[in-house]
Amino acid sequence: MPNPFFKNHGPLKISDLIKLLNLNIENLNHDKEILDIKDLISSTENDITFFHSKKYKDAANSTKASLCITIEALKNELPKTCTAIIVDNVLVSTSKITSLFYPDSINDDFDQSVNNINETKFKDKVSYGKNVLIGKNVSIGINCKIGHNTIIEKNVIIGDDCSIGSNCVIRNTLINNNVKILDNCVVGKHGFGFFPNKNKNSRYPHIGIVLIKDNCEIGCGATIDRGSMSNTIIGQNTYLDNQVHIAHNVKIGENSIIAGQVGIAGSSIIGDNVKIGGQAGISGHLKIGNNVEIGGGSGVIKDIPDNTKVMGYPAKNIREFLKENK
Amino acid sequence: MPNPFFKNHGPLKISDLIKLLNLNIENLNHDKEILDIKDLISSTENDITFFHSKKYKDAANSTKASLCITIEALKNELPKTCTAIIVDNVLVSTSKITSLFYPDSINDDFDQSVNNINETKFKDKVSYGKNVLIGKNVSIGINCKIGHNTIIEKNVIIGDDCSIGSNCVIRNTLINNNVKILDNCVVGKHGFGFFPNKNKNSRYPHIGIVLIKDNCEIGCGATIDRGSMSNTIIGQNTYLDNQVHIAHNVKIGENSIIAGQVGIAGSSIIGDNVKIGGQAGISGHLKIGNNVEIGGGSGVIKDIPDNTKVMGYPAKNIREFLKENK
Amino acid sequence: MPNPFFKNHGPLKISDLIKLLNLNIENLNHDKEILDIKDLISSTENDITFFHSKKYKDAANSTKASLCITIEALKNELPKTCTAIIVDNVLVSTSKITSLFYPDSINDDFDQSVNNINETKFKDKVSYGKNVLIGKNVSIGINCKIGHNTIIEKNVIIGDDCSIGSNCVIRNTLINNNVKILDNCVVGKHGFGFFPNKNKNSRYPHIGIVLIKDNCEIGCGATIDRGSMSNTIIGQNTYLDNQVHIAHNVKIGENSIIAGQVGIAGSSIIGDNVKIGGQAGISGHLKIGNNVEIGGGSGVIKDIPDNTKVMGYPAKNIREFLKENK
Repeated sequence: MPNPFFKNHGPLKISDLIKLLNLNIENLNHDKEILDIKDLISSTENDITFFHSKKYKDAANSTKASLCITIEALKNELPKTCTAIIVDNVLVSTSKITSLFYPDSINDDFDQSVNNINETKFKDKVSYGKNVLIGKNVSIGINCKIGHNTIIEKNVIIGDDCSIGSNCVIRNTLINNNVKILDNCVVGKHGFGFFPNKNKNSRYPHIGIVLIKDNCEIGCGATIDRGSMSNTIIGQNTYLDNQVHIAHNVKIGENSIIAGQVGIAGSSIIGDNVKIGGQAGISGHLKIGNNVEIGGGSGVIKDIPDNTKVMGYPAKNIREFLKENK
Repeated sequence: MPNPFFKNHGPLKISDLIKLLNLNIENLNHDKEILDIKDLISSTENDITFFHSKKYKDAANSTKASLCITIEALKNELPKTCTAIIVDNVLVSTSKITSLFYPDSINDDFDQSVNNINETKFKDKVSYGKNVLIGKNVSIGINCKIGHNTIIEKNVIIGDDCSIGSNCVIRNTLINNNVKILDNCVVGKHGFGFFPNKNKNSRYPHIGIVLIKDNCEIGCGATIDRGSMSNTIIGQNTYLDNQVHIAHNVKIGENSIIAGQVGIAGSSIIGDNVKIGGQAGISGHLKIGNNVEIGGGSGVIKDIPDNTKVMGYPAKNIREFLKENK
Repeated sequence: MPNPFFKNHGPLKISDLIKLLNLNIENLNHDKEILDIKDLISSTENDITFFHSKKYKDAANSTKASLCITIEALKNELPKTCTAIIVDNVLVSTSKITSLFYPDSINDDFDQSVNNINETKFKDKVSYGKNVLIGKNVSIGINCKIGHNTIIEKNVIIGDDCSIGSNCVIRNTLINNNVKILDNCVVGKHGFGFFPNKNKNSRYPHIGIVLIKDNCEIGCGATIDRGSMSNTIIGQNTYLDNQVHIAHNVKIGENSIIAGQVGIAGSSIIGDNVKIGGQAGISGHLKIGNNVEIGGGSGVIKDIPDNTKVMGYPAKNIREFLKENK
């Protein structure tokens, strides 16, 4: 699937990629054109990919990409059809190459392309408040409402029967049907991802989107960041309360309930029918199973299997927590 | 007291109520009209009430309502003047009936009735910023200020000498005198209350209001939800810092101090002269006494008696907490 | 350095100061004019200062101020050139005197002086969205962007190459170069500082500013309060994630990384190269050293020395925390 929102500035010549990384590699057809940068699994023979951890060995073994940014210690895991581009820091180099393909995905400066909704094709189709702004590449289904001062920046698709509150900012987001987003939310900005550098950090690109599925509700003042290389996803019929923060690449399943002021750090995956109590926090890169219940105020720092109730900081089995704290 | 803000669509015939619940009850005068739905204590003989837990047995024994939504196991607690309407789930059925009386209390779509303040009667009375919007059924006292882009939606009463910041959204709220509400607050939206249902949750109505008494200050980015069957109340001279979340039906006493990022879950009652440190969380349906001090970061999961200092997660006596954590 | 933003209404006669405090002091030249109120160290001979705790004895010994608000028990620490003004509560009296010099620093009512940016000198210099408002005493460097509905109230200096998001409110703030402030932030309002009083608290003045140094990024929905007697400072190249709260007088060093929903209470000082995980909280008046790492969800209630990793509530050495919680 091509990226729905960020324009791919490829194809790019191999010579341009090599030059950007300050490398000098001879055994390559420098004039060959590369179409896109993708992960190990999604890549096809005209793409460049990246491989930075042994964890992804199996995917590396069978990648179809013809180029792969990696390190010396990992290069032998790649198939013969894939040429290793050896670098010092795979993620920094991948970030540079991704930025070359998708230069629009790095900065989230305000969208200068917007128009007042009453100057757009949505004028007679949408029920809207005062001072509503609409950017380029926006589509809105039937029977939708958009509140006062809300800014639908570029790259937003809204389904049918949706209600967006007032004072929201939404960009790079795909909203399915019958979704409610309450007042003062910010949805679809880049995540808190960058390479720390003395004096001047360097941001990495966020080419993912936010996907909010059918029948969800997002509470007031929530922030939902878009993904970096994958998408941030809120599953069908999942409800978020006020002041919740969902970081980049997080995926939440169906029918889940997330209470007020919860925070979920980057790339964690939450199952279906999960209940998370108020102010609980979930660290990054975790897997929370289906039917899990997490008590209010908990701090979850490891994976939680299906059908488990946990509480505490760090979160443990809830019966144990309550017994210890009688 | 009649509901100050939500229009009661009653009286409704008993036959309509019974039909909505898909019941078939014969021993009833189906043409009789019911005026309102109220709790067990407030109901009069022309009202319908509900009774879902043995905890409320005493109130049930003496209710004056002529109809009561309940379950088989509880029906014998009702007086003879009150006919039991037996259902599978009391709260779901109560929600349906309430929605029939108060259909406007379920959705919080943006208020389409608003006008720019300079087209209203407040034009010469209030000191206001740019792009201020005012809905129907709003009254504002003397010497008030309303900041830029703020939306006073329908059903808001503001007393004298109040200062509302910029970018706020306020609805269904009664604000007394000399209250300050700082920038980016959302006050009076429905609470996070719904009946979870696979594929599509059903919201229950919120017919309560937010009541903010004299001399309060509400910090930036705060969210205060209105009540479901009762009101959310902030007592006189209570100060809230930034990013505080107050859920539906919460009642906070006088002279209390609530620091930044605190969250108070639904229906908890906080006393007078209470101090709550930053980021502390209080679970729902608790009673926190007068003169209580709760340390920053605490997680309170049970009632706290008057004159107590607590800290920790779960919160315990502060001396004990500090001794254990030396 | 004179206060960059709040107008000093001095000089004020000693008789006016004495009268405000309801005092009756004879050994003073009541007609002498006092220029300003400052801390013990910064004061010069035409200033009044205050001294409320033995902790500041050394500074008191050598203050150059000619007047000092203090208590009986401390007055002998002052040099002969400094006359003690004996009061019951030093901080309350200091607050009153400060308010007399800086009456504009107490209330943060919305700024009525603003104009739409297209009616200002920034019209052709800044890239701006719809409905951007600019107050008095604002300067903006080259190559800056300001998003929709953002309000730059009075007393804001913005350097070059800055990007301000949409729906922000900024006042009393000095922003250096290449700073990004994302959507829905509130920067520069007064802190949560007041003297609790039955029935009506009294606010103390906040004459400090917010200073955001080069290359910082401030996430969506953040709140950064200005200082009371000193400034709130975000050091160079420090990044804040979404929904972070920084209270008054906090000073954060360079190259620090503050994750989502972190809260830092008043007057704490954070070093350089500090990493703070999501939802962590730091109590007021603490000193966090350089190169400190604080795990997500931690509650820090005492100073942390340089080069330390901590986690837990209360936060302790991270190895100890993880061992205890295996």
